[in-house]
Amino acid sequence: MALSEFRPLDEKSLIEYIKATPSLSSKIGDRYDDLEIKEVGDGNLNFVYVVVGASGSFVIKQALPYIRCIGEAWPMTKERAYFEAVALKEHGGLCPEHVPELYHFDRTMSLIGMRYLEPPHIILRKGLIAGIEYPFLAEHMSEYMAKTLFFTSLLYRSTTEHKRAVAEFCGNEELCRHTGKVVFSDPYKVSEYNCWTSPYLDHDAEAVREDNKLKLEVAELKSKFCERAQALIHGDLHTGSVMVTHDSTQVIDPEFAFYGPMGFDIGAFIGNLILAFFAQNGHADQGNDRKIYKEWILKTIEDTWNLFHQKFSALWDEHKDGSGEAYLPAIYNNPELQKLIVEKYMKELFHDTLGFGAAKMIRRIVGVAHVEDFESIREASIRADCERRALELAKTLLKKRREFLSIAEVISAVRHVQS
Amino acid sequence: MALSEFRPLDEKSLIEYIKATPSLSSKIGDRYDDLEIKEVGDGNLNFVYVVVGASGSFVIKQALPYIRCIGEAWPMTKERAYFEAVALKEHGGLCPEHVPELYHFDRTMSLIGMRYLEPPHIILRKGLIAGIEYPFLAEHMSEYMAKTLFFTSLLYRSTTEHKRAVAEFCGNEELCRHTGKVVFSDPYKVSEYNCWTSPYLDHDAEAVREDNKLKLEVAELKSKFCERAQALIHGDLHTGSVMVTHDSTQVIDPEFAFYGPMGFDIGAFIGNLILAFFAQNGHADQGNDRKIYKEWILKTIEDTWNLFHQKFSALWDEHKDGSGEAYLPAIYNNPELQKLIVEKYMKELFHDTLGFGAAKMIRRIVGVAHVEDFESIREASIRADCERRALELAKTLLKKRREFLSIAEVISAVRHVQS
Repeated sequence: MALSEFRPLDEKSLIEYIKATPSLSSKIGDRYDDLEIKEVGDGNLNFVYVVVGASGSFVIKQALPYIRCIGEAWPMTKERAYFEAVALKEHGGLCPEHVPELYHFDRTMSLIGMRYLEPPHIILRKGLIAGIEYPFLAEHMSEYMAKTLFFTSLLYRSTTEHKRAVAEFCGNEELCRHTGKVVFSDPYKVSEYNCWTSPYLDHDAEAVREDNKLKLEVAELKSKFCERAQALIHGDLHTGSVMVTHDSTQVIDPEFAFYGPMGFDIGAFIGNLILAFFAQNGHADQGNDRKIYKEWILKTIEDTWNLFHQKFSALWDEHKDGSGEAYLPAIYNNPELQKLIVEKYMKELFHDTLGFGAAKMIRRIVGVAHVEDFESIREASIRADCERRALELAKTLLKKRREFLSIAEVISAVRHVQS
Repeated sequence: MALSEFRPLDEKSLIEYIKATPSLSSKIGDRYDDLEIKEVGDGNLNFVYVVVGASGSFVIKQALPYIRCIGEAWPMTKERAYFEAVALKEHGGLCPEHVPELYHFDRTMSLIGMRYLEPPHIILRKGLIAGIEYPFLAEHMSEYMAKTLFFTSLLYRSTTEHKRAVAEFCGNEELCRHTGKVVFSDPYKVSEYNCWTSPYLDHDAEAVREDNKLKLEVAELKSKFCERAQALIHGDLHTGSVMVTHDSTQVIDPEFAFYGPMGFDIGAFIGNLILAFFAQNGHADQGNDRKIYKEWILKTIEDTWNLFHQKFSALWDEHKDGSGEAYLPAIYNNPELQKLIVEKYMKELFHDTLGFGAAKMIRRIVGVAHVEDFESIREASIRADCERRALELAKTLLKKRREFLSIAEVISAVRHVQS
């Protein structure tokens, strides 16, 4: 067994691997007789094994050199596991409360060993479909985003640290390229993997492809995505990348991480909450019309942005005399000016958030890889109605994002489209 | 003599070096009896030797690990020679008419061998001070900028090529950091190396440090400079980095090259032409009031932008169905939309150009490293008057850049401040 070569593991060879890896075998007290191993990778990309023994547990995630949900027809570098491990470690160091601990990384094997998020942890998206309220979600996610984005930006870092880190994550090019394609390009042209609820949304999909103003704006966002190294972003922060219980919120799967625009993360999360909102009508039944739940989602969207704004600004204020090189204290150390720069920065970030969030919504309705929020609505005509409303809102947000002055105005727009 | 170690050369050891380097010795037919060597480095950073033999010539440029004009007190990596060589090669490949040929590069020695730009080539800045018209200057510089910027951007490149190149030039961090400091920070705070024509401009320098609106805007430009990898820019494209004769225009010294915002290059060139314009009153004498020459400078500024716009747009049109990933042909291939995206792109680039150009002007008046255009005006009160007008215009351009809709409006503003 050559340890220096990549090989895909199965449940049997995984045990041999664990035995040979102290950082893993020690987690389960080196006992194999009662070991339970289950493949649970329901995501789009990787193989994921849950390993539970009498005295401990962990998760093994292995990247294969293609996209799992599509197959070998869509190759994708297994080096993504390296960037996932680096991002897990970096974001985990900055916000350990909301990032699962990394136990082990094997670059040759593209293999990560990490904390098993034991039940009742479930994927947030499934919780949103089930209509479960998470009272700490906005608080936790805003905390995660504020810390990971602030501390990896030039508001905190020196340009020297920044350039070094940017250079490293340029190596995750293939995954950035994939995002660029599926989010900013495919939905706006005829593309092999695009799909939508047909025939209901045929005209809507066509309208997206023929909307010049929309395509003009999405190009600006794509440039920002490709060119602007603002912070180490998660890169795929939808509600399927978050695991939750009533009081725990854990962000997983940062394999798309790179130095990009902060609004791409915040927008991904908020955009997917808006999708969850518009899907609720499809999940309503006689026992639960979901009206109260929809209000909770809207409140969570509003709180997420407002708390993010508050926490991010507070971190900035706390570290305004630090080593961050974007705003040197010798230039910006007066309260009036400090207020102006924060306002200007947060306004641009808000508009980025709306633009990127909208682009992520559109891609989930007329592009490749849809979301379970809508896919689980069996009746196509109902699903299409939900999707059409979400699409309409997304188009408005993307094209008119600079006209929105607060998240409350966004919520009003959501209500307007829903009614 | 260990060849694997860096050592600063002098005129004597340089001959030994040439003898041991075929790519150089062959240029002069391997003949040393009639060799003339002259140190001519009048720039701020490096040692430059002109080597002329009976059958050929070249220039040797060696970077030392500090800034020459300040000395060992301001260290700066000699690795800059590597990035200069890479940029010379890359830009030279794209625009050989206006970039001198690279003959030799030695990374260990931080040493470049390149074409000697023989007389009557002079530094453009000196020509502008002398009042010499260069009828092809706008044509040539717009050609150089259009080609080097277009072909290294995502309008032409794939994201894969782009990320690889961005990562490499992240290594030139120390020089970027230096620019960030002297252009975007030092003039806006009290700083050891800042100087200005005192006491005349004492209040003006103080006003720059206390102008909140100006500091707010310069922060946005600094972020763009640090974060936006739009194209491989020269990074220091002032009129001292251009050598000219009546019909030749050669861009030299790209040691500050990195992937940054295009407007930083275009702005540097145009901003320095505006400085040259405002300095003319200080060079006027009874024989020449410089009125006609000032009109030529204004015409050159206007032509530079307009020709750049035309050439850049033409390259875009020519390659719009190519491999550039910013605007995929399948999405943007309709004439109306193509027109809209070019307009939007060029409008933002124009405003970047004005902002960066203005920042470069301000730094030359109240920051470190002034320009000979002003320094050569002996009478301090006259010099201060010229500088004050340039500073006033620069502040307007920086703060109100988005209100300017054409280069003609910029020229009007220049005339207004001059009158």
